Amino acid sequence: MIETAAADAMLEVTYTDIETGQPATDHIRAALRRGLHVATTNKGPLALFSGELLQLAREHGAHLLYEGTVMAGTPLLNLIRDTLAGSTIDEMQGILNGTTNYILTQMEAGMDYETALARAQELGYAEAIPDADVLGWDALAKVTILANVVFGASLTPNDSPCQGITEITPAEIEAAAAAGQRHKLIGRVWRDGNAVKASVGPQLIDRSHPLAGVGGATNAMTITTGALGEVTVVGPGAGRRETGFALLNDLIEIHGRISS
Amino acid sequence: MIETAAADAMLEVTYTDIETGQPATDHIRAALRRGLHVATTNKGPLALFSGELLQLAREHGAHLLYEGTVMAGTPLLNLIRDTLAGSTIDEMQGILNGTTNYILTQMEAGMDYETALARAQELGYAEAIPDADVLGWDALAKVTILANVVFGASLTPNDSPCQGITEITPAEIEAAAAAGQRHKLIGRVWRDGNAVKASVGPQLIDRSHPLAGVGGATNAMTITTGALGEVTVVGPGAGRRETGFALLNDLIEIHGRISS
Repeated sequence: MIETAAADAMLEVTYTDIETGQPATDHIRAALRRGLHVATTNKGPLALFSGELLQLAREHGAHLLYEGTVMAGTPLLNLIRDTLAGSTIDEMQGILNGTTNYILTQMEAGMDYETALARAQELGYAEAIPDADVLGWDALAKVTILANVVFGASLTPNDSPCQGITEITPAEIEAAAAAGQRHKLIGRVWRDGNAVKASVGPQLIDRSHPLAGVGGATNAMTITTGALGEVTVVGPGAGRRETGFALLNDLIEIHGRISS
Repeated sequence: MIETAAADAMLEVTYTDIETGQPATDHIRAALRRGLHVATTNKGPLALFSGELLQLAREHGAHLLYEGTVMAGTPLLNLIRDTLAGSTIDEMQGILNGTTNYILTQMEAGMDYETALARAQELGYAEAIPDADVLGWDALAKVTILANVVFGASLTPNDSPCQGITEITPAEIEAAAAAGQRHKLIGRVWRDGNAVKASVGPQLIDRSHPLAGVGGATNAMTITTGALGEVTVVGPGAGRRETGFALLNDLIEIHGRISS
């Protein structure tokens, strides 16, 4: 696949298999072993093998970047690496799956779950088999990546509790609205003593919190820092153009690193 | 003031005078002329003389950074420079003054303007003479900085229309709430053909927009980009610790630049 010795970098953009990480993980291993820099949007390799792959990159003097794996091109990972340098990060919690946030937003407007899911499928947000979104697996892959690369943990997706949105009833959504709250599918990573924990599940969010106002397919992440308190980033979580931008941004970062 | 030739950088943290930019501007000029790097939290020099000062820095091989001038330590300027590299920025609009956002949030909860202002003064958000906040001048200094350093304009604060929150009535706030909207004091910068325009004034924001959910003394900025659409950053806009973090972040950035 990468026979030309002239290449400097590989962009790995094959489909995500969150159980095996393949074939993307083998592509990335092969590229890094040849000293090629890698930018990827594929969640599987990072959720399952981030420690091994980042170590492999270091051993071969290569850079491995993966901005597009979480919140597509919305600059979450680069923000943490570059511009929150100097502050500790104690917790991250956010809306990491646009499909389920779209469905919950429609249900708040009075639509039932099945109709909202069908509408999400028409719009191309949800797959024909929507399990990876509605059961929380997609968000779980993303919080696992954050736990490993931001908090230095060694978690796999199976290590963390994960619940989706399929059991939330219209009555519960109405009751939450009456109490000034909203259901959001929240992915969370936090420190618990020396351990790092992660979880995915529906949570009631007060309407005054920045995450409560995030509607439709938009994603958002609140980062709790030692120096700044809470900082929230809101932006697109998917899309061809947005994911392409993540790759471009990673390439610019790689170029900056190897030029300096 | 900066007699020791051994210093590498100056931190300029004197009070802001938005009409003259002094004495901070002369401090910064003197430091840059000696080749010292400068990190500042002072809005005056950047709102009035950013072009001259950045040019002076280039001529003397020095770096001039100013993350703390807008949204304190919330990494807005660094985010634009580092992690939105590769995308055009078409417009920025946001909540850049925490005092007025606190007052508007209290008025929505039923408090009258005078009581909300007094409460803001008790909490240390507002000065005894609150004009710079409530008439919009503080936000105007910040949008002028953004117009000049992000959009490449050469504006001074007097070039842009500026209105504060003092004329918003409780009846208007109630009517907005009934229509699903909220008053926010919005600072805005945008391209108009080849020109760059800026403004500060109250605007009605739909409750579904990320800026609508930003309550209390928190700041937020929505950046409209070519590649990503809207990206919003929400975080603290003031505070001793937060402003100190901006300086620390600028020093880390300077260290990275001169070490590479």
